[in-house]
Amino acid sequence: SFSSDSKLVTLIPGDGIGPEISSAVQKIFSAAQVPISWETVDVTPVRGPDGQMGIPQEAIDSVNRNTVGLKGPLMTPVGKGHRSLNLALRKEFNLYANVRPCRSIEGYKTLYDDVDVVTIRENTEGEYSGIEHEIVDGVVQSIKLITEPASKRVAEFAFKYAKANGREKVTAVHKANIMRMSDGLFLRCCREAAEKYPDIKFEEKYLDTVCLNMVQDPSEYDVLVMPNLYGDILSDLCAGLVGGLGLTPSGNIGTNGAIFESVHGTAPDIAGQDKANPTALLLSAVMMLRYMELGQFANKIEKACFDTIKDGRVLTGDLGGKAKCSEYTDEICRRIVDL
Amino acid sequence: SFSSDSKLVTLIPGDGIGPEISSAVQKIFSAAQVPISWETVDVTPVRGPDGQMGIPQEAIDSVNRNTVGLKGPLMTPVGKGHRSLNLALRKEFNLYANVRPCRSIEGYKTLYDDVDVVTIRENTEGEYSGIEHEIVDGVVQSIKLITEPASKRVAEFAFKYAKANGREKVTAVHKANIMRMSDGLFLRCCREAAEKYPDIKFEEKYLDTVCLNMVQDPSEYDVLVMPNLYGDILSDLCAGLVGGLGLTPSGNIGTNGAIFESVHGTAPDIAGQDKANPTALLLSAVMMLRYMELGQFANKIEKACFDTIKDGRVLTGDLGGKAKCSEYTDEICRRIVDL
Ligand SMILES: CC(C)[C@H](C(=O)O)[C@@H](O)C(=O)O
Ligand SMILES: CC(C)[C@H](C(=O)O)[C@@H](O)C(=O)O
Repeated sequence: SFSSDSKLVTLIPGDGIGPEISSAVQKIFSAAQVPISWETVDVTPVRGPDGQMGIPQEAIDSVNRNTVGLKGPLMTPVGKGHRSLNLALRKEFNLYANVRPCRSIEGYKTLYDDVDVVTIRENTEGEYSGIEHEIVDGVVQSIKLITEPASKRVAEFAFKYAKANGREKVTAVHKANIMRMSDGLFLRCCREAAEKYPDIKFEEKYLDTVCLNMVQDPSEYDVLVMPNLYGDILSDLCAGLVGGLGLTPSGNIGTNGAIFESVHGTAPDIAGQDKANPTALLLSAVMMLRYMELGQFANKIEKACFDTIKDGRVLTGDLGGKAKCSEYTDEICRRIVDL
Repeated sequence: SFSSDSKLVTLIPGDGIGPEISSAVQKIFSAAQVPISWETVDVTPVRGPDGQMGIPQEAIDSVNRNTVGLKGPLMTPVGKGHRSLNLALRKEFNLYANVRPCRSIEGYKTLYDDVDVVTIRENTEGEYSGIEHEIVDGVVQSIKLITEPASKRVAEFAFKYAKANGREKVTAVHKANIMRMSDGLFLRCCREAAEKYPDIKFEEKYLDTVCLNMVQDPSEYDVLVMPNLYGDILSDLCAGLVGGLGLTPSGNIGTNGAIFESVHGTAPDIAGQDKANPTALLLSAVMMLRYMELGQFANKIEKACFDTIKDGRVLTGDLGGKAKCSEYTDEICRRIVDL
């Protein structure tokens, strides 16, 4: 039923509940007649020609060919020398901006009802440089690396995003009172980007202050841009305000492609039991559709999903219901067909 | 009226509203007949023999002599080369553990009513090492320094604190999945300390996970111990849950002394207008009294303060009332005398 010019998208189902929630998304996409086809790849690490464990070449080729991917949760192998596969993917495809919108969802009650923020995280350097040394016994240094090109790129991305999405303000989040040079450089890049967007408000805030204000009055914030680790922290905090990682989407945007993913865990305890909640992956897929300029399909799917949550009758366990993953999925499909 | 064996305490009133809230605390201490005397010192930076701006020698001598200090907010001078005076004090006196209890206050309504956590922050190294370089134009590195002695010291402090205060659990907060060596070392020290306290539960959590859980269900946590920057962030987040920095105390504990302080700002806009809220400094002074083993005075003052807030009739503007700082102070004094 797909049109011949349907676009190919790489699907990385992932581990644990990954395959179930990926199937759910595929089913919902079919119901919405989204004009894309899936190319499913496995990213279980394999030993490369250099003897190192890494992402299989087939998976890399697929993302490079299709330039757009959707990804379920991945297990991080334990043990020294194993770096997270999530990080490897960000690096391999130079996915420099992590975009995480957090919006209160009608019908899913939390302590907050007016959250509508987007964290934009520099995704390639900072505290995630991976450069560490033990200088002498019991003395370790880890290097936070901030460069002008990466800071500029993500700062400009944040303003472009704000403008394209009708947002009013960008807040640069930093600790330049402590890391004067590194966060100072990041801030300078944000200021320079701000000058090119006079119609978007710009402010600078300390990370600690933002955390404090965010839990008191999230409506103070709009789009936030920040170095890698701060984004890791703040995006999870914001997800907490609206219901957690099971409800919030994430997109990793690069120069030549993008991978959208749910950032929750693999939930091995419920894997294979048709109990998982596919919402975060579905909303990530919705972000992906907007990125691909398939907004009309995105809107339809998003509405069906939010209507299902608001209605409250067919919800998975973690959302307070008794439905199986497949029942929740079918309910969303039914609503799409009725739209 | 002080007994001849009253202990001398260094008072650093600070800038902005500092002097007003310090006077308030002094008044309340008098009403409670606390057996201490104040030695007030000024820490406005002066140029030392080496030509550098620094803490006046008189202030350093006073804290060294008295070993206990109470400190109001300090302005951070702007401009390159000026490091925060707050940081200089931590460094000068080797105040290695920052202790910040955050408890819901009856009568002061926030979104949360069951918060009772204590963040214990390594206060001397980590991301606050101050070591930064511009390697080439536009490439900056900041060094996070984690050492075994400092990590051990604060880890052991956390367990000792937990035990002394009847706490059940210590959570070590980290990103050792990313900074394997530095946060890994910190974690190892926490594990080793945990082994010496088999009656205190111990767990390890990622910082991002803690931030997410904390805004959803703070009752999951008890005592938390972590490297410097994580403590900066998490302590402010927790303060936000119970009403902000105007209501939360802080103590910096060292080997040979301790400085207790309010961590809010100098509020120059309302300085000198008798509008400031002295609660954070007062509760810090209460922590100080417990540290000095003057717990019976601490309890009295704390009760009078909390009763005043619960009663709700005489509160400063930021607490939702119309009282002046002096009226709020007098109300607390009146209640102390009545106790
Ligand atoms: C899985 C882990 C490496 C990762 C991170 O720290 O970036 C996660 O917390 C995230 O935010 O995607
Ligand atoms: C004033 C500033 C240097 C300080 C810090 O970052 O440590 C503050 O945020 C704190 O928590 O005491």
